[in-house]
Amino acid sequence: MDINEKKVPEVVIKRLPRYYRYLDELYKEGKTRISSTALSKKMGVTASQIRQDFNYFGGFGQQGYGYNVQYLLEELKKLLGIANGYKTIIVGAGNLGSAIANYAGLKKRGFKLLGIFDNDEKKIGKTVGELKISDISDVGRFVRENKIDIAILTLPKAATEKIADMLADSGIKGFWNFSYTELKNRNSVFVENVHLTDSLMTLSFKINQNEE
Amino acid sequence: MDINEKKVPEVVIKRLPRYYRYLDELYKEGKTRISSTALSKKMGVTASQIRQDFNYFGGFGQQGYGYNVQYLLEELKKLLGIANGYKTIIVGAGNLGSAIANYAGLKKRGFKLLGIFDNDEKKIGKTVGELKISDISDVGRFVRENKIDIAILTLPKAATEKIADMLADSGIKGFWNFSYTELKNRNSVFVENVHLTDSLMTLSFKINQNEE
Repeated sequence: MDINEKKVPEVVIKRLPRYYRYLDELYKEGKTRISSTALSKKMGVTASQIRQDFNYFGGFGQQGYGYNVQYLLEELKKLLGIANGYKTIIVGAGNLGSAIANYAGLKKRGFKLLGIFDNDEKKIGKTVGELKISDISDVGRFVRENKIDIAILTLPKAATEKIADMLADSGIKGFWNFSYTELKNRNSVFVENVHLTDSLMTLSFKINQNEE
Repeated sequence: MDINEKKVPEVVIKRLPRYYRYLDELYKEGKTRISSTALSKKMGVTASQIRQDFNYFGGFGQQGYGYNVQYLLEELKKLLGIANGYKTIIVGAGNLGSAIANYAGLKKRGFKLLGIFDNDEKKIGKTVGELKISDISDVGRFVRENKIDIAILTLPKAATEKIADMLADSGIKGFWNFSYTELKNRNSVFVENVHLTDSLMTLSFKINQNEE
């Protein structure tokens, strides 16, 4: 696929996983084609916006009578790296780390979870999901030797930057960060900071506005 | 505050928590004013977009030399219902439910967690955070008697719709849904479906694009 030279805006990138989810649903329902109008309705953006979004990636072959669901889904999978089987580890084996380790969505999206690490001796050696918790002092070597792509961070605030530095030095490519600190982008390491309560506040806004 | 009659677009609503987080940071750093240019840089949207966003809520008194940080923060708190102290419960006391129960962000954003429920007899009576896990058969009565506003759902897919129906009948106002099913909006109950892996796919897109 041709990625056009123009830089893809963040807002477009953020819509791609939603396109992917909707197309995956349609595919599972056995749909073979979808019109840009129908997709637009499902996504809550205009058909023209969808065309603009897809034009960043060569347009996905829309031909007046809609998109081929399977083709579009496969292209989105390639774009999103879902076909790459990125290797991940979880750093921090607390409740949230354990919840993510048990989360079926990771495997479903093609991500491989290869390790989970903590510094708590009471946790090390215990099993979470299909993995044994390893000693965090071993995480740098593990990342280098196994060419881990993504570290999922569920760490106490104070420890996060230091461990992120160490993982970056070990060749990690991305942080999916749930720790309560906004990780800065490091040289060639991508960061997605997860702000769980943002969607709770969105919900709260709607309830509040409805009551006024 | 005057909420203008025009309906606030979803994309604007979704930016409000981010405005709130940035303003809260600035406030804690002791900043008293911020220019729309500086805020625009922090948010990654144009200054004109910020003015358009704020115009839905009366403009927040920008006067050429920027916004009053404390005033803007207080107005955002009111809008987001953070000042309302909405009462919440968690339904489903698995790893994710327990992680959320222990999540300091809830209290920090003004949400009160009053109960956590499960149907597993091995879990009922155990303590999570500051709460004892209650029997899910009691959740309807609990919601009615305590006028619970928001139910945080971390349920198996098969159970989600049925329990959501029951909670809606009991007077719940919103669902913050982590269950692996897209909850539909019910009559006067708002829903925020959390798609955890969307941000992981965004990260994966960036890594993938960087490698091509």
